[in-house]
Amino acid sequence: MKLRVVVIGANAAGAKAASKAKRVNPQAEVIVIDRGDFISYGACGIPYYISDTVAHLDELMSTPVGVIRDGNFFKKVKGVEVRTNTEVTGIDRERKIVQLHDLASGGRSELGYDRLVLATGSSPIVPRLDNVTLGNIFTVKSLEQAKAVKESAAADATACIVGGGLIGLETAEALRQKGMKVTLVEMRDQLLPGVLDREIAFLVERELKQQGITVLTGSPVSGFAGGETVEKVLAGEQEIPASLVILAPGVTPNVAVAREAGIAIGATGAIAVDAMQRTSDPDIYACGDCCEATHIVSGKPSYIPLGSTANKQGRVAGINAAGGEATFAGVAGTSILRAFRINAGKTGLTESEARACGYDVETVISPAPDRAHFFPGAKPIVLKMVADRTTGRVLGLQAAGEGAVDKRLDAAATAITFRATAEQVSQLDLAYAPPYAAAMDNLIVAADIMKNKLAGHARGISAQEVKRKLDDGHDFILLDVRSPAEHAEVGIEGAKLVPLGMLREKAAELPKDKEIIAFCKISLRGYEAQKILDAAGFADAKFMDGGILAWPYALRRG
Amino acid sequence: MKLRVVVIGANAAGAKAASKAKRVNPQAEVIVIDRGDFISYGACGIPYYISDTVAHLDELMSTPVGVIRDGNFFKKVKGVEVRTNTEVTGIDRERKIVQLHDLASGGRSELGYDRLVLATGSSPIVPRLDNVTLGNIFTVKSLEQAKAVKESAAADATACIVGGGLIGLETAEALRQKGMKVTLVEMRDQLLPGVLDREIAFLVERELKQQGITVLTGSPVSGFAGGETVEKVLAGEQEIPASLVILAPGVTPNVAVAREAGIAIGATGAIAVDAMQRTSDPDIYACGDCCEATHIVSGKPSYIPLGSTANKQGRVAGINAAGGEATFAGVAGTSILRAFRINAGKTGLTESEARACGYDVETVISPAPDRAHFFPGAKPIVLKMVADRTTGRVLGLQAAGEGAVDKRLDAAATAITFRATAEQVSQLDLAYAPPYAAAMDNLIVAADIMKNKLAGHARGISAQEVKRKLDDGHDFILLDVRSPAEHAEVGIEGAKLVPLGMLREKAAELPKDKEIIAFCKISLRGYEAQKILDAAGFADAKFMDGGILAWPYALRRG
Repeated sequence: MKLRVVVIGANAAGAKAASKAKRVNPQAEVIVIDRGDFISYGACGIPYYISDTVAHLDELMSTPVGVIRDGNFFKKVKGVEVRTNTEVTGIDRERKIVQLHDLASGGRSELGYDRLVLATGSSPIVPRLDNVTLGNIFTVKSLEQAKAVKESAAADATACIVGGGLIGLETAEALRQKGMKVTLVEMRDQLLPGVLDREIAFLVERELKQQGITVLTGSPVSGFAGGETVEKVLAGEQEIPASLVILAPGVTPNVAVAREAGIAIGATGAIAVDAMQRTSDPDIYACGDCCEATHIVSGKPSYIPLGSTANKQGRVAGINAAGGEATFAGVAGTSILRAFRINAGKTGLTESEARACGYDVETVISPAPDRAHFFPGAKPIVLKMVADRTTGRVLGLQAAGEGAVDKRLDAAATAITFRATAEQVSQLDLAYAPPYAAAMDNLIVAADIMKNKLAGHARGISAQEVKRKLDDGHDFILLDVRSPAEHAEVGIEGAKLVPLGMLREKAAELPKDKEIIAFCKISLRGYEAQKILDAAGFADAKFMDGGILAWPYALRRG
Repeated sequence: MKLRVVVIGANAAGAKAASKAKRVNPQAEVIVIDRGDFISYGACGIPYYISDTVAHLDELMSTPVGVIRDGNFFKKVKGVEVRTNTEVTGIDRERKIVQLHDLASGGRSELGYDRLVLATGSSPIVPRLDNVTLGNIFTVKSLEQAKAVKESAAADATACIVGGGLIGLETAEALRQKGMKVTLVEMRDQLLPGVLDREIAFLVERELKQQGITVLTGSPVSGFAGGETVEKVLAGEQEIPASLVILAPGVTPNVAVAREAGIAIGATGAIAVDAMQRTSDPDIYACGDCCEATHIVSGKPSYIPLGSTANKQGRVAGINAAGGEATFAGVAGTSILRAFRINAGKTGLTESEARACGYDVETVISPAPDRAHFFPGAKPIVLKMVADRTTGRVLGLQAAGEGAVDKRLDAAATAITFRATAEQVSQLDLAYAPPYAAAMDNLIVAADIMKNKLAGHARGISAQEVKRKLDDGHDFILLDVRSPAEHAEVGIEGAKLVPLGMLREKAAELPKDKEIIAFCKISLRGYEAQKILDAAGFADAKFMDGGILAWPYALRRG
């Protein structure tokens, strides 16, 4: 008897699992069931389709050489049978059978399996809000929805995005690029909650505002108003005009069929799997957006659905289902998004995640140009590194700015995977030439500052704390150690100017016992000032993390 | 008594060592001696100054906020004394004294030290060739030389670069951008020997030729001819017209003073140091281009002078000289260069280096777009991964192409530092969104192919071997599994077309015992074809590494 592998779901994870199963075991019969019309499409490309960055839907469904990934492609090339428009209504684990519903004919049938792979994906969460069923209120996940949104997007009309996560931001940008007046509403008090710490998310928020998007944080949406189609979004006291609404509060794993069949669901709400992607039933595997993954830093099950993870898990599930042996190593929580000119992302744990995990946390904020500062096209990026004070281990990196953040995230994701310490990161032999990096790469500078902080040499204080001290009328000196020209151009109200080059001479004029917080543009001179003051016998010198570039509050101009 | 730290050399490593020493030990007296006029400049930026990409020399001597790093800067900001135009003529290790020669006044003096840091840098090699002293024959290392070259570079005049290494290529591009007719002459039979394997270097060579540079490999230069200034470069039979010549055969560490003082010189010819950057004299440290570094893959002393390494070593030498404790972890051999539109580089060992180290080597060539193929601006890059068959450990990565190679190199450098296997690299959680990468990053695809090769599932054969078989009239089938349209556009002479989608049906028409080598555009379909033929009982199916994109020979067009 041929081994029969049945895969439920023909997208990233399912398509990968099926292809891999057939490749590993060419004698096996591999059948993929999908309730949709289209298969194996690049859902991550949808915002770019809406914005016309990607011209045709076909491009999202094609291989790199332009072959459409349809049923024929899978049959001819992969040797895999695909049944579209077919829903799996149940799994009889006793009889090893899936129950099928043909959505075209309405017919019902059964299909036996030896091994089953669940790749049922995720669905956009539709919050239970008043009038959420009005016309022109969309989610964006399927190609059908993408088409509908694109057709409804009219220049100069109003759009409202509900949810300030990755998909919400990408869609907001897409609609803005179509010329719409866009309002982005987020319930929590920052954008990208769960992805970025507040001060890094702020850099993204600033860019959205500069691009003409209205951003409302701390604004839970209560419902919608309109006639046949939506006209307003109701958020507390506010009524936001909107002829088009995108619901993007997040996604939820599709686990109904698995749950009904008695397959274990994890604490995250997604299907629980072991390192072989096996569910609680040894003949049933799961992969992609429907299942959990172990976070390699926290060690905990996590739910971070991404196309990159789906492909890796699909490979593992497919190999194991076909009788091979593979394991999935887990995720590092890496995410990235482009928001207009800004690239922003994270890997590992944010500061808030690390604190929630109980780590004794140290952080570094390090802004710098993304390549040699004298090289044309160099653009600033801000890194935030999070480390464990006890071990010196780097727990996470966040990065945002117009420059190349992705490569710092990738190097950090790799370092974090190998449990690198700040010391080890500071020694990485990263690629150096002026078009690519400074002689000391941003990541290495951040790690060096982290080493200085962990050793107690560098005493940083966050912009948030400095702001609180200023607001509270705290008795301290905020010391601007930049040049007079820099100081004249832009500054922080209440700061005293002593350029770094004068500090050794002028230190005698400063009170030795008072708290002194030095800053510059990025914090490197601020740190040098602290060291000069330390050496001169000052009792309480610090520097402000990230300097002016990381100051998220109003600045004095001119 | 104050500790006195004397540093010889005020560039990258020396400046860093001095600043760090003072910061670690503010009571110490730190004195830097340099024989030049300029200090702490970005020598790596010189080609970009020559090409006018960087407008002013000042930019190479400034901090990111535009402060010139001169003696005053070091005194005021760093608390370090700098003596320029001063040559160290000898070290009396017994008396712990350096002998100084003031190049301006001609005066001679002595300076005592407690700790000495050698940061004497490197010098361009000037080969002993006939008439090498003619006018307009330059090396490019100092800012003075850079100025002279820039002044001599006239549009439409002829220039010849002797040496096809990193500096030679960067300078060739700079002069080409100034409108010169440039010939690049390399003694060995490929560009970038010691940096890239032949087939990757070929991609760079092709770009140089497309940009109008004449490239002559396997051409040792025997001398020069001309009047007051150079007119011709003599290379074997050839006479290359040149009104400007750049000698770029490489650099040599400046070790004369150290050698005369009896300090141990390593096998590479550079100063031998331990992990603390200490020389054979426990009170003397060395850092930067004058010393060796341990290669973390080969474990051997290596000489790869780079500004990035100089900064790290300077930090370590400065800390230790001042009484602190730090170690340098070694280098991974990472290098990168931009050659017009092409980015190219390596980390770890090349295939030839790995073979020379005695590894049982497996390689993968993997070309692919650098981001989601449907995303506008996606550009191809080719990765070459080198691994150890015995352990599966990744030994090196090379990358070249118009797309983002630097981030793949940085992630690989990090992975290699932690002795990652191909399996571990394939599981990295790299940042994914369509503007940055495909769902399966190029690095992960390369690692997956490597896993398949190491497990014996994928049997690749290099373009070089295929070419040899074709030239020898070997009896085999070269199977083009691309689409008829792709096949019609460009192909390899002698190949038989069976599109992948037809292969399962048409396999019966192919001889089962003959060697069949499948290929496509990049090799992924080629590999699928091999698996289909394997499953159909073919005895000797293979695929050609890298497909058409990695085929370095003539192609059939149309």
